Amino acid sequence: MPNTKAYAALTAKGPLVPYRITRQPPGPGEIEIEILYCGICHSDLHSIQDDWESTLFPCVPGHEIIGRIGRLGAGVDRFREGEIVGVGCIIGSCGVCTSCEESLEQYCDQGFLGTFNSPLNETAHTLGGFSERIVVPAKYALRVHHSRNQLAGAAPLLCAGITVYSPLRLWGAGPGKKVGIVGLGGLGHLAVKFASAMGAHVVLFSSSEAKLSDALDLGAHEACLSTDKKAMSRYSGALDIVLNTVSASHNLDTYLRLLKRDGTQILVGAPAEPHASPKVFNLLFRRRRIAGSLIGSIRETQDMLEFSAAHQITADIELISISDLNAAFERLDRNDVRYRFVIDMESLRQSDSG
Amino acid sequence: MPNTKAYAALTAKGPLVPYRITRQPPGPGEIEIEILYCGICHSDLHSIQDDWESTLFPCVPGHEIIGRIGRLGAGVDRFREGEIVGVGCIIGSCGVCTSCEESLEQYCDQGFLGTFNSPLNETAHTLGGFSERIVVPAKYALRVHHSRNQLAGAAPLLCAGITVYSPLRLWGAGPGKKVGIVGLGGLGHLAVKFASAMGAHVVLFSSSEAKLSDALDLGAHEACLSTDKKAMSRYSGALDIVLNTVSASHNLDTYLRLLKRDGTQILVGAPAEPHASPKVFNLLFRRRRIAGSLIGSIRETQDMLEFSAAHQITADIELISISDLNAAFERLDRNDVRYRFVIDMESLRQSDSG
Repeated sequence: MPNTKAYAALTAKGPLVPYRITRQPPGPGEIEIEILYCGICHSDLHSIQDDWESTLFPCVPGHEIIGRIGRLGAGVDRFREGEIVGVGCIIGSCGVCTSCEESLEQYCDQGFLGTFNSPLNETAHTLGGFSERIVVPAKYALRVHHSRNQLAGAAPLLCAGITVYSPLRLWGAGPGKKVGIVGLGGLGHLAVKFASAMGAHVVLFSSSEAKLSDALDLGAHEACLSTDKKAMSRYSGALDIVLNTVSASHNLDTYLRLLKRDGTQILVGAPAEPHASPKVFNLLFRRRRIAGSLIGSIRETQDMLEFSAAHQITADIELISISDLNAAFERLDRNDVRYRFVIDMESLRQSDSG
Repeated sequence: MPNTKAYAALTAKGPLVPYRITRQPPGPGEIEIEILYCGICHSDLHSIQDDWESTLFPCVPGHEIIGRIGRLGAGVDRFREGEIVGVGCIIGSCGVCTSCEESLEQYCDQGFLGTFNSPLNETAHTLGGFSERIVVPAKYALRVHHSRNQLAGAAPLLCAGITVYSPLRLWGAGPGKKVGIVGLGGLGHLAVKFASAMGAHVVLFSSSEAKLSDALDLGAHEACLSTDKKAMSRYSGALDIVLNTVSASHNLDTYLRLLKRDGTQILVGAPAEPHASPKVFNLLFRRRRIAGSLIGSIRETQDMLEFSAAHQITADIELISISDLNAAFERLDRNDVRYRFVIDMESLRQSDSG
């Protein structure tokens, strides 16, 4: 029985439209969350357009969720009613594979259960945060310690934030390390904030001159126009880590050359068209590496949220009403957002649509 | 005053011909080595053909050198006359950059001084091991503990051997690790021997069915035809490390898919034509890595030689006379060698050519 207002894409061609979905009451170990804010991620756009040819329609996107706990399912004692929590990309995993046993559910051998667009059975699939409420296993909910007025900006931490935080931690961004961040978008602007708060020396690379001063304001120590060959040459062999947040196809050699010996260029975006093949000599001659990284685990996300609260880190956002949703997606498609859209879900509750 | 018989390529088009070169007496800190054996490396072939457009002619190749110490320069007390030593790719480096300070001369910021084809001044460049003797700084000479009848097979350890040993050590090949070796040539056959001796479980991948049984004889635990999709699928997500020794352009995704989470595919060959661009999704979804590795340091080479002697590891070679040199290069160009040519330098001494 449909009991929850949502917005869904019904086909790959269509706009997002009001749509009623059914949320079951929380079962054992589950919690019901009244959604306050939901960020808009590029993967929401890819999903509703079926860019990866894997979208299950109707598609209710959204996996950057901040909300308040409503009802608790049986046996949930980690949380209390009314508590503010977050839900990111993952709401289930097999629990028994090596990655799950090592608390790295994002690399679950069976594939993790996504907050939206993951099959539940032959006819149903998960429906995400563009909705009034969601029911998830308590073990995949995150505590949020940000203050009330920071909650909207905290929503993008659940995907954009953890996607950059996890590799920065794993590859050791911190004091004494020079970290290059490529791209100043939803992910890149959070990467600048995190890497800087971790104590690293941060250099932001962007092909947009207009973003360079933003980067410095966000905490980068240096900002470099990536199309300026002379400026780029100053960083040749100078960086320990490059975190490349750009998902458009581009030349990875531009950034490989900036790495010291044993440095790693970490890719967190997957381009629709492949990148040009990186030059093997650029890898051999300084024993450099290219790596991929995928979001982050529940444990890492909790750590990231605590780090963010302690360092007063949130995303820079544009808070929108649900009625502006399709317009926001059009702007997102043009990369016209600084730096993340977040939906005020109160506007969905108050809407008479659906 | 030319005092040493050698073989040189005089132009990129020409064959190797008898050529007299001048070796100065050993200066302070240097040793003179009477060369007994010199391996033939693919980079010798690339150099005499000027494939990398960086060859200085006349070119005397050879950097897999085993010899007996003749005269000692002033102040050399680490070695004694008559001792058997090896010389690999490196006979100098800046000594003051971070990599040199960390005993990783192969990554010297200034570029290391190569045993051949490195400029010494405006008119002279280094001349390699296809010669009766060579004079090198004692600190770049390696002790060789192999028995007399193993010395010819030890020569290829100085380049082919260290090129695979260094990354196998760095990426932790050993007990409990599953290591894939791609390609069974000069490098690959030594990688199989080393990884196996290190205690790893070794799977050899080759596109040549004829080489699979060789791989098992050499110590691989399994051997898989890389063109057999069904056989390959058995290793999906199963390997900790892939050491890819193939320098021809090929699809790296074939081997990325075989890696576990956090696994690394290490490239030690540089193709003339770039590899197809690896799929970013294959990197993201298991946090996999691609890395390059370049030969190995003097310290690592000494360690490798001691490990090799202890484990009775040498290359499988075809020992040739200097008069067969051009024929050997022709066969090398067709990959018709199992698994390395080594020149018996006594044949040069006894030749009446030059």
